[in-house]
Amino acid sequence: MIVGVIGAGQLAKMMALAGLPLGMTFVFLDPASNACAGVAGELITGAYDDPALLRELAVRADVITFDFENVPEDSISALSDRVACLPSARALGVSQDRLREKTLFNEIGIPTAKFAPIDSLADLESAVAVIGLPAILKTRRLGYDGKGQVMLLCEEGLAAGWEAVSGAPSILEAVVPFRRELSVIAVRGRDGETRFYPLSENTHRDGILRIAASRPGDQATDEARELVSRLLDELDYVGVLALELFDTESGLVANEFAPRVHNSGHWTIEGAQTSQFENHLRAVCGLPLGDTSAVWDVVMLNIVGEVPETAAMLSVPGAHLHLYGKEARPSRKVGHVTVRSVDGVELDTAVRGLLALPGLG
Amino acid sequence: MIVGVIGAGQLAKMMALAGLPLGMTFVFLDPASNACAGVAGELITGAYDDPALLRELAVRADVITFDFENVPEDSISALSDRVACLPSARALGVSQDRLREKTLFNEIGIPTAKFAPIDSLADLESAVAVIGLPAILKTRRLGYDGKGQVMLLCEEGLAAGWEAVSGAPSILEAVVPFRRELSVIAVRGRDGETRFYPLSENTHRDGILRIAASRPGDQATDEARELVSRLLDELDYVGVLALELFDTESGLVANEFAPRVHNSGHWTIEGAQTSQFENHLRAVCGLPLGDTSAVWDVVMLNIVGEVPETAAMLSVPGAHLHLYGKEARPSRKVGHVTVRSVDGVELDTAVRGLLALPGLG
Repeated sequence: MIVGVIGAGQLAKMMALAGLPLGMTFVFLDPASNACAGVAGELITGAYDDPALLRELAVRADVITFDFENVPEDSISALSDRVACLPSARALGVSQDRLREKTLFNEIGIPTAKFAPIDSLADLESAVAVIGLPAILKTRRLGYDGKGQVMLLCEEGLAAGWEAVSGAPSILEAVVPFRRELSVIAVRGRDGETRFYPLSENTHRDGILRIAASRPGDQATDEARELVSRLLDELDYVGVLALELFDTESGLVANEFAPRVHNSGHWTIEGAQTSQFENHLRAVCGLPLGDTSAVWDVVMLNIVGEVPETAAMLSVPGAHLHLYGKEARPSRKVGHVTVRSVDGVELDTAVRGLLALPGLG
Repeated sequence: MIVGVIGAGQLAKMMALAGLPLGMTFVFLDPASNACAGVAGELITGAYDDPALLRELAVRADVITFDFENVPEDSISALSDRVACLPSARALGVSQDRLREKTLFNEIGIPTAKFAPIDSLADLESAVAVIGLPAILKTRRLGYDGKGQVMLLCEEGLAAGWEAVSGAPSILEAVVPFRRELSVIAVRGRDGETRFYPLSENTHRDGILRIAASRPGDQATDEARELVSRLLDELDYVGVLALELFDTESGLVANEFAPRVHNSGHWTIEGAQTSQFENHLRAVCGLPLGDTSAVWDVVMLNIVGEVPETAAMLSVPGAHLHLYGKEARPSRKVGHVTVRSVDGVELDTAVRGLLALPGLG
């Protein structure tokens, strides 16, 4: 089985590391000739929407998936006539546009913050009159890790906010007061079978995920699974999907979903029976899904901006290191460490030891 | 860190899959241009003792190790002047020669079956007079998976036995009545720190390992660790080493050791905090060793000679598949499956399900 992956970043790399033991091999398409998944498969260098390269990928691969949700929806649509592309172009397209995404959420009964489409400063002013302040103005497309967003605090700031998103089609969202940020990661097979991982409890800083901890048996589990199931079924989804949620006083409120393996699920490599990467491949390749239950309490910490000494990280008992092979730059995720507790050492102690290191603090 | 590996079989492949997340990359040397580790690093094709290729490997790699103990000892000795080669040429050399190996075992107080060197039919006749029958005649060098061995049952068969080993330098070994076959896998760092995995209990058929089960807390643990420690310290060993043992009425008796990661330790990928592959790399690269304790009860089954349908293996709850990407041939190990118990399904039930499949029975 040859798996084609559009995008060759760390998610594609970890996918390949999960698929090589299953006898799969990988072909990646990425604009960067040093894209980090290249160490685990063949890398075709070029634009995500280059028709000739997409055709080559379709000829070479038995199935195509992606590691990056900003792959053009049209690229996936066009490919789908030639070879199985999973998740579907529709799932990808919905996830790329915050307005389509939140509108769909509400249509199928998934609660969201109040929101309104914004195409002009006048739209923004009327929406603020309804939604109130503070509120967040987000571009409809191409935002990630907190980019393309601006927090609006006062009416005087609206024009500056509209300028900050460069007048791009946007949405205004009410700020949701939440107790915790959670995500639910689920996998759905070609036959519709669906499995859910234990919830992840996530900590962000400056819009970037820093810590994700597995929460087997969390009290919000049933509610989260109900919500993500609606989305999976509506999209007739195949593969792994992550739904980001706010845990609020009135229940769970959806933030956004990612039609792919997700940073908040990296802990599944060491903490679950079957990792999200393996289950994504099992799903898109039409293989039986693997057990998603937890095998161990784990905490994952992202390495952002700079990389500590390898020896310093590996000397923390129970630490499992994942370096992506990307050059370190400010605010760039370049790796993660997952910690499992070991005899005599509390998980918290190990986590504190890691948080003291540069890039992990 | 660039790791050079002499040999690019499944052990090298699994080593690379463990090392890529640590930010390591791999260069392999193997005579086969389709050697299976090639999917996870760069493959240099050529003989293990080709001086030019060995020099190339030494220039390219920061450290060199091997996945195959029949790499010529001289190749490693010659390389060791240019780049760190671990485990050492001496450890490799001792393991390649059953007479040197067993003699060393006895010198450092590791019990073995009675044995005698055999260089002629006359030697064989005198040795049988002392050791008795049945006994096993084994070539001193180049035996693996039961090859290069013949069981001698009666005095009339001695000449035929000597012919079966083609008159090669050999040793005669007494047959050891044993209750169980065990192995102890240990890892020793550059600084001499040593860690031990829980014992493996091994089942062979036709000289080929079929099943290895982890045995945390086994009563033979302390004795096995004492024996392997003597060997590690005597050899000033660096890396993972496996010592195969017979569990007999009078205690543990050593069979042989492998100066490398070992088939009976493949269960550590899913069953231990840190796999043998990762710990081997940590050791040879001078990094802190990882925790070797068990995280889950596991059983590993080799896939030999033919490969069942992937879907049939993955539909067994808790099954973790490792296909090496080698062409199936009779008696050839082409993969393994490690089973972890999952909620509501006993490990034995899952193992029985797998044993019913071709190649696993």
